[in-house]
Amino acid sequence: MSFSFPFSAIVGQDEMKLALILSTIDPNIGGVLMLGDRGTGKSTVVRSLAALLPPIKAVSLCKYHCDPALSVLCSECEDKKRNGIKLKVDVINTPVVDLPLGSTEDRVVGSIDLEKALSQGVKSFEPGLLAKANRGFLYIDEVNLLEDHLVDLLIDVAASGENVVERDGLSVKHPAKFVLIGSGNPEEGELRPQLLDRYGMSVEVRTPTDVLQRIEIIKRREAFERDREQFIAKWAEQDLEIQKHIVQSKKRLERVEISDELLIKASTLCAHLGADGLRGELTMMRTMRALAAYQGKKHADIQHLKAVAPLALRHRLRRDPLDDTGSSARVERAIEEIIQ
Amino acid sequence: MSFSFPFSAIVGQDEMKLALILSTIDPNIGGVLMLGDRGTGKSTVVRSLAALLPPIKAVSLCKYHCDPALSVLCSECEDKKRNGIKLKVDVINTPVVDLPLGSTEDRVVGSIDLEKALSQGVKSFEPGLLAKANRGFLYIDEVNLLEDHLVDLLIDVAASGENVVERDGLSVKHPAKFVLIGSGNPEEGELRPQLLDRYGMSVEVRTPTDVLQRIEIIKRREAFERDREQFIAKWAEQDLEIQKHIVQSKKRLERVEISDELLIKASTLCAHLGADGLRGELTMMRTMRALAAYQGKKHADIQHLKAVAPLALRHRLRRDPLDDTGSSARVERAIEEIIQ
Amino acid sequence: MSFSFPFSAIVGQDEMKLALILSTIDPNIGGVLMLGDRGTGKSTVVRSLAALLPPIKAVSLCKYHCDPALSVLCSECEDKKRNGIKLKVDVINTPVVDLPLGSTEDRVVGSIDLEKALSQGVKSFEPGLLAKANRGFLYIDEVNLLEDHLVDLLIDVAASGENVVERDGLSVKHPAKFVLIGSGNPEEGELRPQLLDRYGMSVEVRTPTDVLQRIEIIKRREAFERDREQFIAKWAEQDLEIQKHIVQSKKRLERVEISDELLIKASTLCAHLGADGLRGELTMMRTMRALAAYQGKKHADIQHLKAVAPLALRHRLRRDPLDDTGSSARVERAIEEIIQ
Amino acid sequence: MSFSFPFSAIVGQDEMKLALILSTIDPNIGGVLMLGDRGTGKSTVVRSLAALLPPIKAVSLCKYHCDPALSVLCSECEDKKRNGIKLKVDVINTPVVDLPLGSTEDRVVGSIDLEKALSQGVKSFEPGLLAKANRGFLYIDEVNLLEDHLVDLLIDVAASGENVVERDGLSVKHPAKFVLIGSGNPEEGELRPQLLDRYGMSVEVRTPTDVLQRIEIIKRREAFERDREQFIAKWAEQDLEIQKHIVQSKKRLERVEISDELLIKASTLCAHLGADGLRGELTMMRTMRALAAYQGKKHADIQHLKAVAPLALRHRLRRDPLDDTGSSARVERAIEEIIQ
Amino acid sequence: MSFSFPFSAIVGQDEMKLALILSTIDPNIGGVLMLGDRGTGKSTVVRSLAALLPPIKAVSLCKYHCDPALSVLCSECEDKKRNGIKLKVDVINTPVVDLPLGSTEDRVVGSIDLEKALSQGVKSFEPGLLAKANRGFLYIDEVNLLEDHLVDLLIDVAASGENVVERDGLSVKHPAKFVLIGSGNPEEGELRPQLLDRYGMSVEVRTPTDVLQRIEIIKRREAFERDREQFIAKWAEQDLEIQKHIVQSKKRLERVEISDELLIKASTLCAHLGADGLRGELTMMRTMRALAAYQGKKHADIQHLKAVAPLALRHRLRRDPLDDTGSSARVERAIEEIIQ
Amino acid sequence: MSFSFPFSAIVGQDEMKLALILSTIDPNIGGVLMLGDRGTGKSTVVRSLAALLPPIKAVSLCKYHCDPALSVLCSECEDKKRNGIKLKVDVINTPVVDLPLGSTEDRVVGSIDLEKALSQGVKSFEPGLLAKANRGFLYIDEVNLLEDHLVDLLIDVAASGENVVERDGLSVKHPAKFVLIGSGNPEEGELRPQLLDRYGMSVEVRTPTDVLQRIEIIKRREAFERDREQFIAKWAEQDLEIQKHIVQSKKRLERVEISDELLIKASTLCAHLGADGLRGELTMMRTMRALAAYQGKKHADIQHLKAVAPLALRHRLRRDPLDDTGSSARVERAIEEIIQ
Repeated sequence: MSFSFPFSAIVGQDEMKLALILSTIDPNIGGVLMLGDRGTGKSTVVRSLAALLPPIKAVSLCKYHCDPALSVLCSECEDKKRNGIKLKVDVINTPVVDLPLGSTEDRVVGSIDLEKALSQGVKSFEPGLLAKANRGFLYIDEVNLLEDHLVDLLIDVAASGENVVERDGLSVKHPAKFVLIGSGNPEEGELRPQLLDRYGMSVEVRTPTDVLQRIEIIKRREAFERDREQFIAKWAEQDLEIQKHIVQSKKRLERVEISDELLIKASTLCAHLGADGLRGELTMMRTMRALAAYQGKKHADIQHLKAVAPLALRHRLRRDPLDDTGSSARVERAIEEIIQ
Repeated sequence: MSFSFPFSAIVGQDEMKLALILSTIDPNIGGVLMLGDRGTGKSTVVRSLAALLPPIKAVSLCKYHCDPALSVLCSECEDKKRNGIKLKVDVINTPVVDLPLGSTEDRVVGSIDLEKALSQGVKSFEPGLLAKANRGFLYIDEVNLLEDHLVDLLIDVAASGENVVERDGLSVKHPAKFVLIGSGNPEEGELRPQLLDRYGMSVEVRTPTDVLQRIEIIKRREAFERDREQFIAKWAEQDLEIQKHIVQSKKRLERVEISDELLIKASTLCAHLGADGLRGELTMMRTMRALAAYQGKKHADIQHLKAVAPLALRHRLRRDPLDDTGSSARVERAIEEIIQ
Repeated sequence: MSFSFPFSAIVGQDEMKLALILSTIDPNIGGVLMLGDRGTGKSTVVRSLAALLPPIKAVSLCKYHCDPALSVLCSECEDKKRNGIKLKVDVINTPVVDLPLGSTEDRVVGSIDLEKALSQGVKSFEPGLLAKANRGFLYIDEVNLLEDHLVDLLIDVAASGENVVERDGLSVKHPAKFVLIGSGNPEEGELRPQLLDRYGMSVEVRTPTDVLQRIEIIKRREAFERDREQFIAKWAEQDLEIQKHIVQSKKRLERVEISDELLIKASTLCAHLGADGLRGELTMMRTMRALAAYQGKKHADIQHLKAVAPLALRHRLRRDPLDDTGSSARVERAIEEIIQ
Repeated sequence: MSFSFPFSAIVGQDEMKLALILSTIDPNIGGVLMLGDRGTGKSTVVRSLAALLPPIKAVSLCKYHCDPALSVLCSECEDKKRNGIKLKVDVINTPVVDLPLGSTEDRVVGSIDLEKALSQGVKSFEPGLLAKANRGFLYIDEVNLLEDHLVDLLIDVAASGENVVERDGLSVKHPAKFVLIGSGNPEEGELRPQLLDRYGMSVEVRTPTDVLQRIEIIKRREAFERDREQFIAKWAEQDLEIQKHIVQSKKRLERVEISDELLIKASTLCAHLGADGLRGELTMMRTMRALAAYQGKKHADIQHLKAVAPLALRHRLRRDPLDDTGSSARVERAIEEIIQ
Repeated sequence: MSFSFPFSAIVGQDEMKLALILSTIDPNIGGVLMLGDRGTGKSTVVRSLAALLPPIKAVSLCKYHCDPALSVLCSECEDKKRNGIKLKVDVINTPVVDLPLGSTEDRVVGSIDLEKALSQGVKSFEPGLLAKANRGFLYIDEVNLLEDHLVDLLIDVAASGENVVERDGLSVKHPAKFVLIGSGNPEEGELRPQLLDRYGMSVEVRTPTDVLQRIEIIKRREAFERDREQFIAKWAEQDLEIQKHIVQSKKRLERVEISDELLIKASTLCAHLGADGLRGELTMMRTMRALAAYQGKKHADIQHLKAVAPLALRHRLRRDPLDDTGSSARVERAIEEIIQ
Repeated sequence: MSFSFPFSAIVGQDEMKLALILSTIDPNIGGVLMLGDRGTGKSTVVRSLAALLPPIKAVSLCKYHCDPALSVLCSECEDKKRNGIKLKVDVINTPVVDLPLGSTEDRVVGSIDLEKALSQGVKSFEPGLLAKANRGFLYIDEVNLLEDHLVDLLIDVAASGENVVERDGLSVKHPAKFVLIGSGNPEEGELRPQLLDRYGMSVEVRTPTDVLQRIEIIKRREAFERDREQFIAKWAEQDLEIQKHIVQSKKRLERVEISDELLIKASTLCAHLGADGLRGELTMMRTMRALAAYQGKKHADIQHLKAVAPLALRHRLRRDPLDDTGSSARVERAIEEIIQ
């Protein structure tokens, strides 16, 4: 068992925590990009989230831990079902998979099991990290240091929910639905605009400037380092509270309603800001719904729109050479001009 | 079975849908290039098309699914025929093959079956994606991110209808007639002019600016995501209608007539616009004929010419440094000046 | 059997057709480089030529299809002859070999037969495309997209008539006399001057500007596509006529005489144009002789010189920064000034 | 046994020696970066430190030499414990591992044991240098000549204390807690700011300018080269003294107290200097505590803060284009302005 | 047997022919570099020389064809001799080895015999082209297209007369004394000055400008192509004459005397021209002696100096930015100024 | 046996010869870098030195030819000794190992013996050139053409006297104490300052300008080439004299005394010249002592300092943009200013 820093013990960083919770409530929102200085706890919060996520039901021994409640299964589960084999079910942790620097493409997308190929003469697919991350989260620290072709591939799979492998005379397709969480420091190499667009939400993380808050953070950090078990026990109840809240929000999600009027406002805002495509609106609709569900509301309203707009749109703006206002400020100004 | 978004449920994007339908009616037109912003549904429409295509008859077990109605077969089918073996026939879906990012050249053109080579000491060819795509469609998303040598190779095969493999002491040739469908965003890297020329038609795709249309799109998208089976059932009849229409158009195609007068106008238009070679005229003739067949007409006329000229010529214009009008506008202006 | 477009059905492009016929009459002229826009039928004419070439006699089973009439044979045929084994003779098509994009160097020059090496412990040479092309034609479409080292190698072999392979502890030498035919579009990447010089003749191919001619071309193309067998049958007689003509010209070739006076004019022209080396004169002498033979003449004369000078010299001129006249025009102007 | 130069015989270089001792007392401080001219004994001091380090208790035969006193063990030790196997304990030297130039990534992070894989058909992990360095020090001379991807990887592992290997179908995770010691000459290639930040302390090393000190150094060096054993014996007692001092300081460490007032001063200093993140404060707190422990104090005070600030902050400053003062001077000026 | 163009039938190019003959008389002069336009017969003359070279005596079956008259033999011959095995002697052609473009380093320097290594478990050295060229000539056409590392290696071996191979756990050393002949066109890529210096002599080759001479060349070329055997027979006597002359000159070489006065003039000339090192003088002394021997003289004199100075020095001059005179002219001017 | 040019027959080049002799007397001085034009006999002098070196005693069959007189042995010799096996002793030549261009890293540092690994299943280390050079000299001609990573590695090993190999799951450490001798021409690519600093001494070699000396050199060279054995015999006595002198100097070395006063002068000189680190002083001390021993003196004095300063410091100066005096001149000027 690993001992990660409790989610609820993280000081400040409310926007980052909110975005992660919303992506947990509705994985369709599409991933979170965390941008900011080093040393602001981006990796910490992901580890904390992992410990908090509600467990899920999965077909036993399935490499892709298929959801037994779905009618669409992986090809191996389908085969079993068709042959009348009853699928056993396990309860497992929601996967949170790290993609460490230096991972090879083979390890990410999967590869041929060379031993089987050589010893038994059969080509067998050995699933990679994308299979492992199915139904969960895939975390990439320093996403801007990752090789371009790997990023393209990840974005592609994240979008389609399927991993298609065409190599070495092998043609494999398996479910790979996961929330992509990336972190990076824009000062260490910019992200290509087309990649930014593929994340549902983005957050900006900064070092707190308040001295007392800073000291509180390092004190908690020290306490945690000194005795992890005790520190975790102290915050366990608050973490459990958040977990329950997430489970309930997921159930409520389907029933949250969004009026056409609200959608028109969201769409107008996107058009005004000149975001390409319709991913902006789609993300806003889903994020508003998730936020309303989290707050126990039955309807999304204009306050939800205002709250999620920066999360959903900040990274979709075209750079405007005549306006060097930060993108967060531009979103807020647009909300003021358009919505009210 | 996969559940793709119904073709008929796609809002707007009429030009893109028309080009794909015409390339289905006459595969000789030569492929469709879809250019435009991300998030405009380019990949979606290809998946939708796949579900709509009429099934085809093919020789059973043939790796290239030869057409039993043709006198020209692949070398294996020819061998069987010559030896008096009767070719069995299956009905299969028209292949729509994805060329995923990261595919190796081996996987695309085919390779030696190493297992057979090592275990049985015989060199056997293992067909690649080009074999799979024979008689169907090959789709490449983000064609501008593909490596140059792979693009050259694909264009070459698409033009000749044959895949010639000369490697590892192997010399294989097999039919590989397919319609190449590429999509890309010109802002993310321009396409070389010589590659543009090899596509029959090109379309420009843009995010709709009408707010109500935008909302309709995301609503349909959400409905589809929420319950795919139900959504597909709702649009099934309309999709079937289009499929029937395509089948009938293919039959009518041969009988559509094009007058010399109309050809002269097409040719004059091409010369006026300074398109290299004769691919412009050839494409226009075929596209006019397909469109007339689709409309149930027996003769192509000047309206057909006007309708297809942008599709067929837009991507064949030389850049004119003194004229920064978009290429669509230049085609339309030329039509006005020349035809009328 | 392949069904290529009939040579005689090609509309216009007289210079290109003439150059190819002359290179067939006297392979020593040294290859043809076809330069021009895409879509002008450069590949088509090569396929058409292949169907037209007269068959040749070759030693049965010889990997290099040795000419039984020659005293110089490949090492394997020599061995047989020395051992008193009678060489059987086959009649085969003149080889026209395609060098497809993506061919590996191994496949071009030949390689070790790895299976034999591993299973039988003997190093055996597996001939490549250069062996296949011996006594025929080697065609490279888009010669300017080929890797430099491959081009160097081809030029080298074409010049010496021998393929020398020094690799993997193997030292093989075999006859590789072939006419190199390259096509390319100078706009897509220039050819190095030293490579230009190695082609005997060059032709410039352009899209016809006459609208009626353009329509005739696409009509014939369509007719051919609709029913290849019928179309080929229609033009068969004219193609056969050209074939006979070539066979007769080859016989006449030896007897055509060229006066010293004519050679002096050719040499003066070359010197005036500043062509490096003596390949210009040598090519002109051979091309004039082939042309005279093709016209049934016993003597080459000044008209032949004028006819072949552009073919033989156009690509050998140094770029003159003060004279931006096209090279064809410069050759013609020089003829006027020098010859009279 | 190796014969390294005695730590206590090193002339001058007090700051470098102090930083190394503090990192030994509290490994959580996070590594030392030694910057300076060649020939200033940076490598020597690391070798000297190795001979001085107190021995540690470790599980016998454990590849990662787990600490038997901890509740968290490596997976193999855990397995043994769970199966009721008693863990034997050895006393070993604290590891000081060199990462020589030219080490492959495989050797650093570990790799599959190919022999076992081929002979016994099992994939077995062969630990690399990171495993070897667990619970000790990893030294990289000329860290600025190391390839970027290796540096990223090392920094990553050093931060997390775990080595995660995802390659060749293998997924291994093992403890890799070590103090990273890097040395380099900034004139031979700058270090990226984000890497600087990952070292706990940095020191600047310079050639002494005092001639008598210089002569003392080369004399000791010569004496050492002439008879290593005798020279080491002469300084053995002083080295042992330092070792004992370190062991006592480690015990005292937990009990050293730091007032909030002192932390606020440290935090204010960091904010004033504009260091990113909170690593500055965290490092200062730990370094002050280690220094106080080393001096036998129960409370850290303002003198400790002043002493450690340059060590902890010097390499975290942003370059200020309007202020070309060296970073050490800037830290000292800030202390003056802020602290008193 | 190969049929190369007779040396004596080559029209003009006297300097190139002289340099080659001198390098045959005294191989210690150190190689010939032929610089000039393509199409000037540089490769032809090397092939012609090969046919002309006097045969040599060599130890039978020796891979390096050791000279039985020398006391220094290869290690294998030495072993035989030591063991009392009598060395048989063959008469073989002087080797003239081509280094074709695309040769691998393995093939040039030699490699492990993999088959023996795998089947018999012994590492055996398989000699490469450098072994083949021992005691003869190594010809590289287009030496400026060869990869740098291969050129360095060749120059190195040519200088030391030994090939040292240190790879794959093998350490082999064998005699590799050969005359390096390179040809190239400086317009296609300059040669590094340090490489120029390693050739003994250099010649500049130009296309003849005299029209009658040009016609004579192409006529002979045509006659040769039409009937090689007859053409060679016609010139056989003259070639034999040159061969005899070379053999006699080699015998006379030792006895030719060079006065100190002449050496001083040569040395003064080199110093005046600013040639680096002493290779200039050394080459001049040897070249003068070879020329005198070829002319049947017992003493070299000032005329010999004048004749060989351009051959020996032209490529050793430093580029003088204030003097754009060609290097041949600069050598001649220096002779006038210095020698008288 | 090889026949190298006798050391004592080398004309001039006194500084180069002195530096080599001093590095032989005290290998701790640290290598010689010979800089200068090509053709100045840099390689010749190294080969000459090899023939001159006194033989050494070494443990029989030891791969690293351990010195039986030392208490520190290689791990294999230590094992034998511990097991009571008596070490036999051979007398061998001092190794002078060439590192030829194109050597692979594997061959330099050593590698796994693949045959043993495959056939016997054990990983066995196959020593490389660094093992071979232990206790002797490693010569690299054109050290500036060597790949950077190889140079780094060599410098590193030369400094530590140990070769550490971490690759392929192997961890080997063996003694590799050698004197590194590099030669190069600064005009063909500069050496990095940090590499210069690692050589103990550097010499500048120039082509002699005196014509009579030049002639003497080429005459001796010719005499040597004509009859090596006779030439070597003629100079044998003088070479033997130098060898004896070296052996005696090595014995005297320990007893030479250097006063503090002299060291202070050396140190002041280094500081004045701004040489980084203390390598300058250390080298000067050792070089003065070696020179005094060579001259049979018991004390080093100011004359020795003046003699060795250029050798030891010339390559350690920082480039001074305002002073374009050559580095030799700057050292001499500093001596004048400081010492006197």
